[in-house]
Amino acid sequence: MTDSLAARIRHTIDTKTKPLGALGRIEQLAEQIALVQGTTAPVMSVCTLTIFAADHGIADAGVSTFPQVVTGQMVLNFLSGGAAANVFARVNGVGLQVVDAGVAGAPIAHPDLIDRRVGAGTANFLDGPAMSAAQAQACLDHGADIARKALGEALAFGEMGIANTATAAALAHKLTGLPLIDLVGRGTGLDDAGVRHKLAVLERACGRTGALSPAQAMAEYGGFEIVMMAGAMLETAHAGRIVMVDGFIATAAATLACALEPGCRAAMVFAHRSHESGHRVLLAHLGATPLLDLDMRLGEGTGALLAWPLLKAAAAMMSDMASFEAAGVSNRD
Amino acid sequence: MTDSLAARIRHTIDTKTKPLGALGRIEQLAEQIALVQGTTAPVMSVCTLTIFAADHGIADAGVSTFPQVVTGQMVLNFLSGGAAANVFARVNGVGLQVVDAGVAGAPIAHPDLIDRRVGAGTANFLDGPAMSAAQAQACLDHGADIARKALGEALAFGEMGIANTATAAALAHKLTGLPLIDLVGRGTGLDDAGVRHKLAVLERACGRTGALSPAQAMAEYGGFEIVMMAGAMLETAHAGRIVMVDGFIATAAATLACALEPGCRAAMVFAHRSHESGHRVLLAHLGATPLLDLDMRLGEGTGALLAWPLLKAAAAMMSDMASFEAAGVSNRD
Repeated sequence: MTDSLAARIRHTIDTKTKPLGALGRIEQLAEQIALVQGTTAPVMSVCTLTIFAADHGIADAGVSTFPQVVTGQMVLNFLSGGAAANVFARVNGVGLQVVDAGVAGAPIAHPDLIDRRVGAGTANFLDGPAMSAAQAQACLDHGADIARKALGEALAFGEMGIANTATAAALAHKLTGLPLIDLVGRGTGLDDAGVRHKLAVLERACGRTGALSPAQAMAEYGGFEIVMMAGAMLETAHAGRIVMVDGFIATAAATLACALEPGCRAAMVFAHRSHESGHRVLLAHLGATPLLDLDMRLGEGTGALLAWPLLKAAAAMMSDMASFEAAGVSNRD
Repeated sequence: MTDSLAARIRHTIDTKTKPLGALGRIEQLAEQIALVQGTTAPVMSVCTLTIFAADHGIADAGVSTFPQVVTGQMVLNFLSGGAAANVFARVNGVGLQVVDAGVAGAPIAHPDLIDRRVGAGTANFLDGPAMSAAQAQACLDHGADIARKALGEALAFGEMGIANTATAAALAHKLTGLPLIDLVGRGTGLDDAGVRHKLAVLERACGRTGALSPAQAMAEYGGFEIVMMAGAMLETAHAGRIVMVDGFIATAAATLACALEPGCRAAMVFAHRSHESGHRVLLAHLGATPLLDLDMRLGEGTGALLAWPLLKAAAAMMSDMASFEAAGVSNRD
């Protein structure tokens, strides 16, 4: 066979029993999955969601409607199976694991919790770096290790962390140069005054530093869960597996991963367009069009969980659907 | 409990462990499902897709890129499990059955095919009615009977019929008064000249009659599979089950069902915005916003099949997700 893999993949899709292009985004998704797996008969059967939880010193600046204690409470909710992510994971047959990347307070003792605590929450980046360079590197390493051990042809990543839309906005701003005002949104439900305050806080915080390399930006303005997620994404892409990117926070992590290694973009599937206003500009920056648009803004990997059946359908379309020839169906005149 | 069901449903959703409204469309979907089932703990576990196949006399006017023989060939493809609908049904655990509502030529003999043939394709509605009033009534009755016997808290309906975007456009035009030019599209892949020809054919055909009642319109311009689908939708709504509406053709059937009995609209979930251009205006006419927008234009129920996991997720969110109180999670300040 002298044709390139890409040409053979396209031919496989185009000879299925359907009008040319009639499965739209599912065809594009199938093409991407097949390219990542290097085959015309891709498989999507197992997916694991890892939820990274951590706290953020910037919460002290009053940028969220929820108290910081909720991060740890939600970790327990994930572990007891009651959160939206648990419900969606069960419905769609996705494995779920929870990582303490650095929740504030004393460590949570639970046999199912994966302890990769880099600290008890980041420092407040209003006054100085959120974390040290060594902590940032530890996050990347932990993320890679967790991804290496997770099962699935696709790995999905979610997060929990009170105030992490603020962190994601600051980090994305420093990585991309996109205006802060376009990246700052309501988070869990700020009113207009709350959004103005959040923007003022982030303008002051980001004014503290000039141009930064990706490595500098992740230490200055990162969150433990966001940098760990970026490390997991990089390792997943290296391994020829699909990276399922969830909402705004996860897209900030994806932006960091792409800034560190642009090649990992090819393995990323963007699951969902969040209702959080900054997501739209960040997606555009990455040239990404998410599969779903359901006005959600919860995080936890909920968007990725709802998109997983579409990945299964896309792979099955390539691998199991009949061709015109095999089915004895006449093609167009 | 003196609160209304609607208020109790809303309260149940609003006290789940998530910011208010953070699950967007999934919350609205959960609300609709709960109202249709009359409970705050809805169940979505089983779904059946019925594909209605039939031929159209208007195909003689050259309004499709595919020859009419493809309808029957695709019926055999459905029965042997090779079509996109089969693949998506398997991936998402949806039952699938195929109905011959009136495919052209000799009847197809196959033990799994449900034979409800009303004729060997409709007459060409360019010159006279597509079917008799008795045939239209037979379609509605067959559809209701099929829905009554189908398993599931939700029933999905798909179709196959060469030239049925032309039929759907003519019928929708007569039912709604929407301009034909907004309802006519490329179907399986017409070029610009083909679309102009299709529009001219439909303008001549629709000019044949004046204002019509829904019952008159379905006989004059209906397709056997479209009217049968409308009958199935009406019965599904009567039974307090969710009607999953697929793409453009299924939405024309939904428009007919709503014209006959406006009350059935409340049970309808619109699965997917088809790339077929007329779908957008028809959805707007029905006040419907589909769950998915994946640039697909295949029919067969493929959009409904891909949306089914979202219905399961919505019901499970209401029934299985923890409340703030139950999970011991602090609500916003």
